[in-house]
Amino acid sequence: MSQVKALVFDVFGTVVDWRTGVAREFAAFLPAFGRADLDPFALADSWRALYQPGMEECRSGRREWTRLDVLHRESLEKVLAANGITGASEGDLDHLNRAWHRLDPWPDVVLGLTRMSRKYFLGTLSNGNIALMANMAKRAGLPWDAILGAEPTRAYKPQPEAYLRTAEILAMRPEEVCLVAAHNGDLRAARKAGLRTAFVPRPSEHGEGQTKDLGAEDPWDWVGADFVDLAAKMGCA
Amino acid sequence: MSQVKALVFDVFGTVVDWRTGVAREFAAFLPAFGRADLDPFALADSWRALYQPGMEECRSGRREWTRLDVLHRESLEKVLAANGITGASEGDLDHLNRAWHRLDPWPDVVLGLTRMSRKYFLGTLSNGNIALMANMAKRAGLPWDAILGAEPTRAYKPQPEAYLRTAEILAMRPEEVCLVAAHNGDLRAARKAGLRTAFVPRPSEHGEGQTKDLGAEDPWDWVGADFVDLAAKMGCA
Repeated sequence: MSQVKALVFDVFGTVVDWRTGVAREFAAFLPAFGRADLDPFALADSWRALYQPGMEECRSGRREWTRLDVLHRESLEKVLAANGITGASEGDLDHLNRAWHRLDPWPDVVLGLTRMSRKYFLGTLSNGNIALMANMAKRAGLPWDAILGAEPTRAYKPQPEAYLRTAEILAMRPEEVCLVAAHNGDLRAARKAGLRTAFVPRPSEHGEGQTKDLGAEDPWDWVGADFVDLAAKMGCA
Repeated sequence: MSQVKALVFDVFGTVVDWRTGVAREFAAFLPAFGRADLDPFALADSWRALYQPGMEECRSGRREWTRLDVLHRESLEKVLAANGITGASEGDLDHLNRAWHRLDPWPDVVLGLTRMSRKYFLGTLSNGNIALMANMAKRAGLPWDAILGAEPTRAYKPQPEAYLRTAEILAMRPEEVCLVAAHNGDLRAARKAGLRTAFVPRPSEHGEGQTKDLGAEDPWDWVGADFVDLAAKMGCA
């Protein structure tokens, strides 16, 4: 395992708590539209539910690869329409769409990443686009060495190209790169592409009723209780 | 001018002293090949002289866009052959080629960038590829928010696409992005694409006999004596 040189990270759910962050921004947005009756967490879940279908249009080839900020904006308009929210200005919509740029990391993340950064090259391997990932990192103090993933590779996980082209950009062999994720499916696809794998559970990503990804489902190369524990298990004091 | 949100930087020459860094690595490389007689600075200049011709093959469309690490490696082999240096192993060549990943910044850079980072989004807009730029940044402590430029845009400066697609990736208008460079030609191309411009002189980039880019040749939006001075002039205490 000592050949691993780079750790690359799933971000939504693994690094940041998207549900709480997006719900917080809906809660701030709704009163101006007279809809403080709506549940901001339910709206966050509805928005996120359109995430995979939006990317699937690109993965399938039915649509040219398109940045996540654009897909997010399209799905936001659907969510608002479905809930009868009308009259938002272009500026309102753009600000709300950028809620994803303003997500907060889980409490262990900054310390864990800072320790891992001493020994490994750290990159994102997210389906988020470069501006989204970089704005989030600047605000939250995430010490990435590079923003990689969907936009530089023009592929959406779990397409194998998303993993393989990320290793190629790093000029590393796949086995020199380890994906860190809270999602077993993402790790399965990364392992299939030849990457190393590390799992960290995020049992409240989907709220209290979360039923999936509560633990490691396969014998991943590393499993950490959180990022600080994973750092220790990967040799970063 | 207050609309500028992101500063993007030329790197070779503007941020790092490539000539001294590459010469230092040639000086360490030559003795094992019995060629300590050769001038390492002259070899650095010879290598750099093949930089523009290599990229021109890609700009012209005669060759598909190719990473700078690959172009550097091809030109290194030409320089070694032209100087009768033979017998270097694959590992030797790879290590020497990565001299560009190990360049040191000019003395004012880290302090200047750290100050600018408080107010602006900071990115690279270099012809260097992502791994090259990110490895350099990690080693030297350069606080980039994102590695942009040639590889994400698949264009080599001064092609307009290199500037315009960088602004597009940032989701900013060209006039919200300012190129910082020690090269008047790079700034001319950036201004033509609609970016703002900032000049910092690097009068020893090419050694003692440097004749070009000794000062600002056009009325650039900002001119700093160095990065610390530029930070102050751009409102970053």
